[in-house]
Amino acid sequence: MTGDTPARAAHKHSHVKADGRMLYLYGWRPHDQRATEEIAPAPTPRPYRRWHPFRREWVTYAAHRQTRTFKPPPEYCPLCPTKVGGVAGEIPFTDFDVAVFQNRFPAFHHDAPDGPDLPVLPVPTATANGACEVVVFTAAHQGGLAGLTQDRRELLVHAWTDRYSALLAQDGVEFVLPFENRGEEVGVTLHHPHGQIYAFPFVPPVQQSAVDTFREGPALARLLDRLGATYVVCQNGGMIAFVPPFARFPYEVWIAPKRAVPGPWAFAPAEVVDYAALLGEVAARYDALFDRPFPYIMSLHAAPKGEEATFHFHTQFYPPLRTADKLKYLAGVEQAAGAFLMDALPEDTAAQLRSVAVR
Amino acid sequence: MTGDTPARAAHKHSHVKADGRMLYLYGWRPHDQRATEEIAPAPTPRPYRRWHPFRREWVTYAAHRQTRTFKPPPEYCPLCPTKVGGVAGEIPFTDFDVAVFQNRFPAFHHDAPDGPDLPVLPVPTATANGACEVVVFTAAHQGGLAGLTQDRRELLVHAWTDRYSALLAQDGVEFVLPFENRGEEVGVTLHHPHGQIYAFPFVPPVQQSAVDTFREGPALARLLDRLGATYVVCQNGGMIAFVPPFARFPYEVWIAPKRAVPGPWAFAPAEVVDYAALLGEVAARYDALFDRPFPYIMSLHAAPKGEEATFHFHTQFYPPLRTADKLKYLAGVEQAAGAFLMDALPEDTAAQLRSVAVR
Repeated sequence: MTGDTPARAAHKHSHVKADGRMLYLYGWRPHDQRATEEIAPAPTPRPYRRWHPFRREWVTYAAHRQTRTFKPPPEYCPLCPTKVGGVAGEIPFTDFDVAVFQNRFPAFHHDAPDGPDLPVLPVPTATANGACEVVVFTAAHQGGLAGLTQDRRELLVHAWTDRYSALLAQDGVEFVLPFENRGEEVGVTLHHPHGQIYAFPFVPPVQQSAVDTFREGPALARLLDRLGATYVVCQNGGMIAFVPPFARFPYEVWIAPKRAVPGPWAFAPAEVVDYAALLGEVAARYDALFDRPFPYIMSLHAAPKGEEATFHFHTQFYPPLRTADKLKYLAGVEQAAGAFLMDALPEDTAAQLRSVAVR
Repeated sequence: MTGDTPARAAHKHSHVKADGRMLYLYGWRPHDQRATEEIAPAPTPRPYRRWHPFRREWVTYAAHRQTRTFKPPPEYCPLCPTKVGGVAGEIPFTDFDVAVFQNRFPAFHHDAPDGPDLPVLPVPTATANGACEVVVFTAAHQGGLAGLTQDRRELLVHAWTDRYSALLAQDGVEFVLPFENRGEEVGVTLHHPHGQIYAFPFVPPVQQSAVDTFREGPALARLLDRLGATYVVCQNGGMIAFVPPFARFPYEVWIAPKRAVPGPWAFAPAEVVDYAALLGEVAARYDALFDRPFPYIMSLHAAPKGEEATFHFHTQFYPPLRTADKLKYLAGVEQAAGAFLMDALPEDTAAQLRSVAVR
């Protein structure tokens, strides 16, 4: 099944921005453009962490983010290509395929200070060592995962894989989270198709729970075995998209490789193709569901460092919509107790997403 | 300090609604009105729980909530008093002080079924035994905690205490959460001042973490000792309001009794007065901050059943605003990893809330 597809190799062009931040351009062909205009340097990031003794979790403070001086002119997108002599964006090239650059206001930083510039705090603090990167899916300002070509989505998977490899190798990084916030409903103001990558100096609570479960046994493989047709949205040779029977959002969807692999870096060439295809198909079904660009939070759940033997990679989509124009709010019960309430049954939403007409 | 204030006793009038749901009217004087019109009966609730094996938490499904037939006419509030011959609301009396009634569409129910009407699910399920109640603060349609009289807020504390006592005694209930969602920003469509109470058949994740911490030592008492003036918003003899040094929301505020008590049921009479006063003052400071009704999620964190010896009661306010008109969104990092990021420093927001002019 996975042996017939030849592996593709992406080209990567590394560029140091004017303020020292790294920019990587990924493409199927080599990149040979010269840099155009560079934006003004960013302030030095000084993020750090404080311990929440009652939730037993880290809260990351990046107060420098408040002092943002970079305000793009209206109608101007910092993720679009920068024309020669034009207004400088984050990507000083006239064209690109997939671009990744270090976030201007990172919550985690490879050179973060040990603690705050403050008198002694009544709670433990720690360095916010790590990384925050922005992943731009295309030079085109409009669209989304569904509108990208299959070729481009495969390139995106290659870019994620490269970042996983580089960031997991960075000193102190324990977990790497690529994600996409899409739509104003989840707070996005920049509509250019893009995602982000956070490299954490700790295993976050959600991933630690999954680690604990995977250490006990192959829970996701067992779930896939028992899903039946009821929960499946769509599938191909290597991947399956489904509404989890324990969904916390009405149209929550997960994409998982049928073979238990710890992350995209372990995909066979055919699995890269199948994963890129199912990312596009799930996004297309979402957009078709209410005939509008569908907002969601998408996140890639790969193995934290050292958990590769048991962790089964998967991608989770959390859409905030209950209907075409009604939001699911996270209020008292969800926020104050951490307990989710659901009106919609996964069996029903899976059937809806399965039956929607795409393409 | 707490010995001079005489204890007050609230009157409670119990009423069985037309569909069998209970309604309780609390007042400083006895209630002697006759019931007016009753609304149509609610469908039988059939909530149940499913286990999320990767987050290791329960998700509660209440699919009957989708089939709501009760649609109040526009401009009509189901929490306002019901006039004789008028449109029936949830409270069939022409006036009341504080009213509590069983929620028409409960996510937890004292007679919940053992599981879903479904073929075998690929995850464990459990009964959603428990209770959901609505707490109406006043017969007046407008306002909030700050606008209530001190007398009324004290009555509200008595009502909460009575519900704690009744619900913690209910079979299978492990934890009781009174809370208030306020403002459209947190999804509230009913502006009549009210809160809710959820009685859970399990200790939710947030409270389990706090339980674990309190079992290790008096973490909140130690924190109060070390707060200094930096984090304090306001205080009186028995209570202190502060921005926690590990705040997850820019204007997060906690109110705690200076004496470690497990819940409002253990308050001395003076502590009831002080707690009611500080609830009003925090709400007033919030409303004054941006000169607008301030949205928030308020939650009361009392001891789960059996944890009374170590748990230190406190109240948490989570406001969704970063500025007068900018929301803090919970997106990829918060939702997919459970890790909170903060731009604003607790030291700064505490100073802002301390200096705002009230009354």
